Amino acid sequence: MTSPPPGPPQGMRDFLPDSLRERLALADRIRAVYAKYGYAPIETPALERLEVLKGKGGGENEMLLFEVLKRGEKLEESRVATEPAGLADLGLRFDLTVPLARFYALHRARLPAVFRAQHIGPVWRAERPQKGRFREFVQCDVDAIGSASPALEAEVILATSEVFRTLLGDGFRVVANDRQLLTSVLNDGGVPPERHETALIAIDKLDKVGEEGVRKELAGRAIQEDVLKRLQDAKGWGWDHPRLARLKAVRDLAPDIAFDPFLARGLGYYTGPVFEVRHEGMAGALAGGGRYDGLIGRFLGTEVPAVGFSIGFERLLLVLKERGIGLLDAERREVFLPLTGTAQAKPVAALAHSLRAKGIPAVVQPDPGKLGAQLKMADEILHCPLALIVEADGRVTIKNLRIRQSSSPLSPEQAVEKAADLLRAATLPPATP
Amino acid sequence: MTSPPPGPPQGMRDFLPDSLRERLALADRIRAVYAKYGYAPIETPALERLEVLKGKGGGENEMLLFEVLKRGEKLEESRVATEPAGLADLGLRFDLTVPLARFYALHRARLPAVFRAQHIGPVWRAERPQKGRFREFVQCDVDAIGSASPALEAEVILATSEVFRTLLGDGFRVVANDRQLLTSVLNDGGVPPERHETALIAIDKLDKVGEEGVRKELAGRAIQEDVLKRLQDAKGWGWDHPRLARLKAVRDLAPDIAFDPFLARGLGYYTGPVFEVRHEGMAGALAGGGRYDGLIGRFLGTEVPAVGFSIGFERLLLVLKERGIGLLDAERREVFLPLTGTAQAKPVAALAHSLRAKGIPAVVQPDPGKLGAQLKMADEILHCPLALIVEADGRVTIKNLRIRQSSSPLSPEQAVEKAADLLRAATLPPATP
Repeated sequence: MTSPPPGPPQGMRDFLPDSLRERLALADRIRAVYAKYGYAPIETPALERLEVLKGKGGGENEMLLFEVLKRGEKLEESRVATEPAGLADLGLRFDLTVPLARFYALHRARLPAVFRAQHIGPVWRAERPQKGRFREFVQCDVDAIGSASPALEAEVILATSEVFRTLLGDGFRVVANDRQLLTSVLNDGGVPPERHETALIAIDKLDKVGEEGVRKELAGRAIQEDVLKRLQDAKGWGWDHPRLARLKAVRDLAPDIAFDPFLARGLGYYTGPVFEVRHEGMAGALAGGGRYDGLIGRFLGTEVPAVGFSIGFERLLLVLKERGIGLLDAERREVFLPLTGTAQAKPVAALAHSLRAKGIPAVVQPDPGKLGAQLKMADEILHCPLALIVEADGRVTIKNLRIRQSSSPLSPEQAVEKAADLLRAATLPPATP
Repeated sequence: MTSPPPGPPQGMRDFLPDSLRERLALADRIRAVYAKYGYAPIETPALERLEVLKGKGGGENEMLLFEVLKRGEKLEESRVATEPAGLADLGLRFDLTVPLARFYALHRARLPAVFRAQHIGPVWRAERPQKGRFREFVQCDVDAIGSASPALEAEVILATSEVFRTLLGDGFRVVANDRQLLTSVLNDGGVPPERHETALIAIDKLDKVGEEGVRKELAGRAIQEDVLKRLQDAKGWGWDHPRLARLKAVRDLAPDIAFDPFLARGLGYYTGPVFEVRHEGMAGALAGGGRYDGLIGRFLGTEVPAVGFSIGFERLLLVLKERGIGLLDAERREVFLPLTGTAQAKPVAALAHSLRAKGIPAVVQPDPGKLGAQLKMADEILHCPLALIVEADGRVTIKNLRIRQSSSPLSPEQAVEKAADLLRAATLPPATP
């Protein structure tokens, strides 16, 4: 007995056709919505230079880098130097924001003054594997760079809401807060600036641990408990409260947002409004974003205003699955062509050609075998709705694999027409479960 | 002055919207053609375990591996061991064939007996950078696994020909040979089996160095020059020559192939017919493939028949560009909405909403500024064909940015209808060059 075949690396996945078709369809649907708002697709390499990835606001994610060994002579030199940090020169990106900042700095002269980008692609993090957490997963970011206008917060919120409305219908909502509001509450509460980040991390845990949990978190981090009360008070503020002015300017154009003073968003780089999409009955967010005016300019040495939203592609797929929402417009439309003898090979190939010329996908059995077994495979594994069987006399029988009914023998031309009609019919019965 | 912003790693590329749209469109077009032949999309991780990547027929490509450093404790252990090979545990895939073999071995029980896969994705090779050669580039493979029937060679040839015919129209041709024929010619010429591979590499250079060059290559590798004469003789064989029997069975179903006894295809794993797509006036191939019955089964410990074709995605893009063939169905269809004063922000947002609700992409200017500068940017950088200008009285003027003509003032509803009509018109003038 041989050893079991090797799998993909820990925390990484193969995608079989059915799940990949869903993933491709989801990416297309997301792309199409953002395109309506002028967000243009960009792509950056999987690898970046280590000096680009390190120290750019990635926070804990920087710790999870997959680093790439130097090659050839350079590796030998580093080995001899025995300096621990010098063996790698590249790393796999851990998010799409750092690459975007590098991209923007490099290509700025060719980009519009307000640059709207959509960026969908895999990122890699060497996290401890656990259920639902992967080491290679897709991120889906939109960013608008070059303007401080709250119209852009509103725009990414409206566009992202449209993505979710298109896909899910309902069941989600957008909550928002303002980092500057959080900062002033922390200042009012006497929290020194250098402890703001740890305080925000505690506050951000509200939906996981509840208010009592946040109280304990704050106490554990030696943050004045008073902060919690101030945030609870903020819940009662109306939209005309002066500290909500920035958020109100966003709400004027994106009226469906709800204010949540506890929303902090973990990442350190946000500088203004922050927001996330929540789904009922689900802890954590389906998407998150905000204004981050400091990060994009780091490679330029100037400050560049920017706002972004990132959809949790993998989480969204899970929600779609849980809610039984399929993304593939129609069921499989391939026609199966069995082969019962080598003499049939040429007429079967000719029939396949005619079907494809009409735009009908045709899957041909290359080796002759028993008809029953072939049709069973076509139905149960390939999910083909129809089989076109070339008989010994050259005529063609159409078998509807869903309802197990056969046509009378037809000429090949008639069979192609008939198959096209059957496939066009919206009422094609569902696949065998 | 600050230092220039960092670029992507050497040999890797950023894609700006215009080029990325072309790349996405090309992948879609290729996917659609292969889907008509029943080739189902699969995806595997960018990273594989090193033991999967090494020693699996990748030949010289294995030398070009980007290896990923172990992480945490495991790295420390390897460091202490000072064993040179132990610092890395993963590598970036250098092709899609080795991952496919692993994929097939792992998932075989869930796949049809004849498994047709299409696999499009990036691969990484640490090649010496040179013009037109990249360290991250897209491969585009189709493979049919599980049958030795020549119908499958014919199928991948027909499908791949359809890809090129759809994209290029003409200017390409498919040439074919049989590795077993080459083997018998080498045997006849007295070349010992262990020198066959080096002989094939010499023969494969014909289109780069010519027959005289091949003669020198063979001499340099101490291969009997007689082999060259035997291959020249084979050019005169008719399709009924007994040594062409395997290839003739392919040609029976894919009649447009041309026999070329010098075609060898570099890779070591081919076991039967090999083929490539050549483009007139271009050295090298646009696509290459063949039967490789030994590789897929390596992880299973059994032999599994397989045939594949791989399109040179980056080369194909170059040819399309050289021939001036654009893949994007239509020119850009975004409508630009300028902003001349903050008072306009709300009516502009409302107009954008109406346009998007009609499926018309709308790009909104977030910061007020001079109209002329905004329209110039919209035309020259965003390539928007139309601008919809909200006037102070709330009415809307449509400016055709191509022909620089403006409409009379319209109501917002009229403007949306009119813009839809203008965009539908197939005769929209071309973008400003």
